[in-house]
Amino acid sequence: MIYTLEECCAMVEAQLAKLNIGAGEPANLYAPVEYALEAGGKRIRPVLALMACNLFGDDIQPALIPAVALEVFHNFTLLHDDVMDHADIRRNRPTVHRRWSENVAILSGDAMQVLAYRYLCRAKTELLPALLEAFSAAALEVCEGQQYDMDFERRTDVSIGEYLNMIRLKTAALLAASLKIGALCGGAEQQNTEALYRFGVALGLTFQIRDDLLDVYADPRMFGKATGGDILSGKKTFLLLSALEKADSATRRQLLELIGNGEIADGEKIRRATAIYDLLDVRRTAEQAMETYSSEAMEHLQAVKIPDASRKAELKKTAAMLLKRTK
Amino acid sequence: MIYTLEECCAMVEAQLAKLNIGAGEPANLYAPVEYALEAGGKRIRPVLALMACNLFGDDIQPALIPAVALEVFHNFTLLHDDVMDHADIRRNRPTVHRRWSENVAILSGDAMQVLAYRYLCRAKTELLPALLEAFSAAALEVCEGQQYDMDFERRTDVSIGEYLNMIRLKTAALLAASLKIGALCGGAEQQNTEALYRFGVALGLTFQIRDDLLDVYADPRMFGKATGGDILSGKKTFLLLSALEKADSATRRQLLELIGNGEIADGEKIRRATAIYDLLDVRRTAEQAMETYSSEAMEHLQAVKIPDASRKAELKKTAAMLLKRTK
Repeated sequence: MIYTLEECCAMVEAQLAKLNIGAGEPANLYAPVEYALEAGGKRIRPVLALMACNLFGDDIQPALIPAVALEVFHNFTLLHDDVMDHADIRRNRPTVHRRWSENVAILSGDAMQVLAYRYLCRAKTELLPALLEAFSAAALEVCEGQQYDMDFERRTDVSIGEYLNMIRLKTAALLAASLKIGALCGGAEQQNTEALYRFGVALGLTFQIRDDLLDVYADPRMFGKATGGDILSGKKTFLLLSALEKADSATRRQLLELIGNGEIADGEKIRRATAIYDLLDVRRTAEQAMETYSSEAMEHLQAVKIPDASRKAELKKTAAMLLKRTK
Repeated sequence: MIYTLEECCAMVEAQLAKLNIGAGEPANLYAPVEYALEAGGKRIRPVLALMACNLFGDDIQPALIPAVALEVFHNFTLLHDDVMDHADIRRNRPTVHRRWSENVAILSGDAMQVLAYRYLCRAKTELLPALLEAFSAAALEVCEGQQYDMDFERRTDVSIGEYLNMIRLKTAALLAASLKIGALCGGAEQQNTEALYRFGVALGLTFQIRDDLLDVYADPRMFGKATGGDILSGKKTFLLLSALEKADSATRRQLLELIGNGEIADGEKIRRATAIYDLLDVRRTAEQAMETYSSEAMEHLQAVKIPDASRKAELKKTAAMLLKRTK
């Protein structure tokens, strides 16, 4: 049988609840872990793992605990990222370091990383070397991507190539590893796990560029948060970097000055930056990049060789939903 | 052959150097990892792993990479502990978060945890489930111990029993796991790995109580740092908790008032607290506890069944050296 998105989500939630992490002692270590894992997330990574497993057979149970491990790891990265970014709100609630303390957030995050590995290790012994290597490689890449992202904050000469490499590491690698890990649990052969990995990378790149685009061009009523946050924080997004690359030297200087200017009112700053983006048509640049990567993704999914290609329908639907423009 | 302490140390250093972690990119992620792993540490955990392996055979190569994983993990905990404690100096050098930044320290620590797992996974596949479970269990216990330690800072009613449980988690568990992991790599049977684990727990408890004792009663010229640091920071040590437990209610109040008093000059505070410790003879209480745990440790080592018991000599010597009083 083929599991739907909703069924996969429900299995992940049930497995997470069953682990009952929040009951652990000391409470100040495990309650924040449970809090960080509570509802609100889209569970994309474990769902992708389950669906990848499902391509190769009806039994997706072997992928369930590794899928949960991926979700725990992902939420650990959010927890530490929020500390590093001094973010106050995540999923409409105070972040762990605001609700408890920075130290609790650091330590609970550390514990989540261990828990992620511990769950992953419940997979069959013969799968462990491949699963663990896929997981560790992606985990390190996430750290590398986050460091590049922080390095970029102090630079004004980041190229689009560097940016794409950064989001490949920070965002795409774990999505790709989720698919690979699910496929490995389903007994997939190397050619197929690699094709799914590449599908995940392209999907992740599309997804991140879409995120950058929505921050500026989404309908705030649909988006769920105010637009322009990236402009205000001076984040090196695909839009900003494309604009800097396309602009003549005067506009480039003007844009850099605007982004770095702390005196201008928020609304005005967003309005002016968006005007420059419009002028340079970077929205179209981003949409073209998204199209390139999303068709690349579909080609890689096409390259997965299974007897019954109709099994890919649910995964395709989920990918499309992920990339659906909500503005 | 039996490897000496010096030979084991040299093998660990060589293996660490061979990994060439500092060459990784981005430099702001991997240079701090290399810095944290550089000279200065006593490499106790990997040495114990190698010696435990050596009990069961001449070839200790299978334990080398897992041993290094333990050292990387230990140094990750120091890195994050230093952030949480706002410590400026570690091994006579600025801590990572002082030399770089807090964010770099958090992220490089996260990467070290992944690296530790990655190295551990280079062990033989059939060993992986047992090695990884021993490692993850200890890693979580270290987090739990650290959280209890932080919880204790706000409490004045911590019992000796709670304290011993805290140091068992925070310090002893990883030493014990190091011995267990080394033994597993040497092909030891469960009874022996468990005896070595218990040896490690008792060793760790002795070691930590000795540390608490030295902080107050060491000769500063031998100790390498000023004494009394725990008194000034109000740390719940074995000495303080023993004193609070033995004191009559007036002395107890007096001691708590003293520890919490921010007005008294450092030297005077240390002098007064030490006078109370002397009065209550908590030095002897600590020395008795050390004796209890160190003989317990030796009993557990005795219980390790190997054909040639003389192979234990080097491990005994190392344990004795660890516990040698340097005052």
